Amino acid sequence: MTRPAVASARFAGVELGGTKCVCILGTGPDDVRDQQVLPTRDPSTTLEAIAQLLECWNASPEPFKAIGVASFGPLDLHRESPTYGRIGNTPKELWAGVDLAGFFSRRFAVPLGFSTDVIGAALAEGRWGAAHGLTDYAYITVGTGIGVGIVVAGKPLLGCHHPELGHVRVARAAGDDWPGSCRFHGDCLEGLASGAAIEARSGVSAAHLPDDDPIWHTVAHTLGQLVHILALSVGPQRLLIGGGVLNARPHLFPLIRRCFAASLNGYLDIPEVSCELDPYIGPPGLGTRAGPLGALALAMETGD
Amino acid sequence: MTRPAVASARFAGVELGGTKCVCILGTGPDDVRDQQVLPTRDPSTTLEAIAQLLECWNASPEPFKAIGVASFGPLDLHRESPTYGRIGNTPKELWAGVDLAGFFSRRFAVPLGFSTDVIGAALAEGRWGAAHGLTDYAYITVGTGIGVGIVVAGKPLLGCHHPELGHVRVARAAGDDWPGSCRFHGDCLEGLASGAAIEARSGVSAAHLPDDDPIWHTVAHTLGQLVHILALSVGPQRLLIGGGVLNARPHLFPLIRRCFAASLNGYLDIPEVSCELDPYIGPPGLGTRAGPLGALALAMETGD
Repeated sequence: MTRPAVASARFAGVELGGTKCVCILGTGPDDVRDQQVLPTRDPSTTLEAIAQLLECWNASPEPFKAIGVASFGPLDLHRESPTYGRIGNTPKELWAGVDLAGFFSRRFAVPLGFSTDVIGAALAEGRWGAAHGLTDYAYITVGTGIGVGIVVAGKPLLGCHHPELGHVRVARAAGDDWPGSCRFHGDCLEGLASGAAIEARSGVSAAHLPDDDPIWHTVAHTLGQLVHILALSVGPQRLLIGGGVLNARPHLFPLIRRCFAASLNGYLDIPEVSCELDPYIGPPGLGTRAGPLGALALAMETGD
Repeated sequence: MTRPAVASARFAGVELGGTKCVCILGTGPDDVRDQQVLPTRDPSTTLEAIAQLLECWNASPEPFKAIGVASFGPLDLHRESPTYGRIGNTPKELWAGVDLAGFFSRRFAVPLGFSTDVIGAALAEGRWGAAHGLTDYAYITVGTGIGVGIVVAGKPLLGCHHPELGHVRVARAAGDDWPGSCRFHGDCLEGLASGAAIEARSGVSAAHLPDDDPIWHTVAHTLGQLVHILALSVGPQRLLIGGGVLNARPHLFPLIRRCFAASLNGYLDIPEVSCELDPYIGPPGLGTRAGPLGALALAMETGD
């Protein structure tokens, strides 16, 4: 059997993370032609290494059709802005102000899809994962930090700034007055439920805590509050929660569902929020691949 | 000078409220041909009285081109739903399940615009008021309850349910542990900062409290939390806060801005959230007219 002609339209994705960059070549989860992980160093070293890998892929008989860059934020995503494509005020040393979109656009004469890592992952889940066929949904990542990508009526929600719901303040669990670990807000969502917060509070990496550690109740309560906020604001049909902390803890899903249901207390009378809340609140369909596939999805969106 | 021909395209609006219905005929705030207030009684009496007024308007040489209905909620706003156009599970006696859109569509052979009162008011503010020219903004009403209408990329945000942000739980002000007045959630936004909550807490109607009553700090803190949530989720370019409680208390705006700024703590580095936060957080441009003009805006949207 010969390979269908359509398979020659390949795409390149770059997931730019705080410690590593995943570069991916292909057309989707079942057609990854190459994937390479590079360490995130200073901006020029890192971007040059990525560009050389992409040039190598591009030199093949099947050059890629578009590039997708899914990056840690904050990012300026407004095309009409004079600082479009740049990283904003990040605490990550040397990276604030770096012109990511400009770098890739100057170096490669193909369309560029550019967004945050979580918006990319949300689009990948819509294209190939647990949000397939949905028009309104959210992808939440709980790792070192907490990020939220939101899709509304089939498009990423941007407003005048991409969502930063990791830094929303939430109602605390009764009797819990730990001050939180966020350097801006103390006990915001990220300051209570991120991997960094769990480690700051317990003194142990989230990965090494037993499933029955009481800290997971704080995490579930806090994420239940995030779901409560999302359900009553953007009204997603489904909420996917992934990232390093959640991917390893499937036991948290029933807890989060229970905390959300208790918090909402029967207020929304819609089928999506049924008694079981499964699959309303669930894991991403692509698991840990949602990030790099998100970069690929951003590349493919440029041609849609 | 003869009246321009375009003025003959008149529209009818119905703002359906808990205690009264405002019916309006015209094309905008500077061209209101008639406005009538009817009491809200049981559904059939109320809707029949409205329909008779509209028929009377329609019998003139200039029949209206479309009807807009802006109603209290919850409402089913999804056209493909079998219960589209109906009021949901409202505590307002006899009104749950009432088919508002069906009633007006059967009675009048013109296009019908149908949405919540706050979404209507938001669209009116975008068309004629303080959100004119903006694509992303929120209209918040603080009256007996709290409602939020959100416009994203020029369109009302719906998701699988219209926003119900009055019932989101918020971080409490330090030292404040009043349990709140919401029958679902206790100390949610509405349970802390609505007119009903103010009266439940103080024993006095909000209208009769002095401007320096300490309760206004709770209200400002709570609304500052709502702004914090909106700023980090839908990213509005501006937030307008109106309704019976706020319209009478302009002194709350500097307090709300201060509470929001303290809560956000410099996190968002965008021009909209500048140091002054004026006009980022401000009153509606149409004041108390945003509600009925919202119904008119919904009628006019049907032809856009």
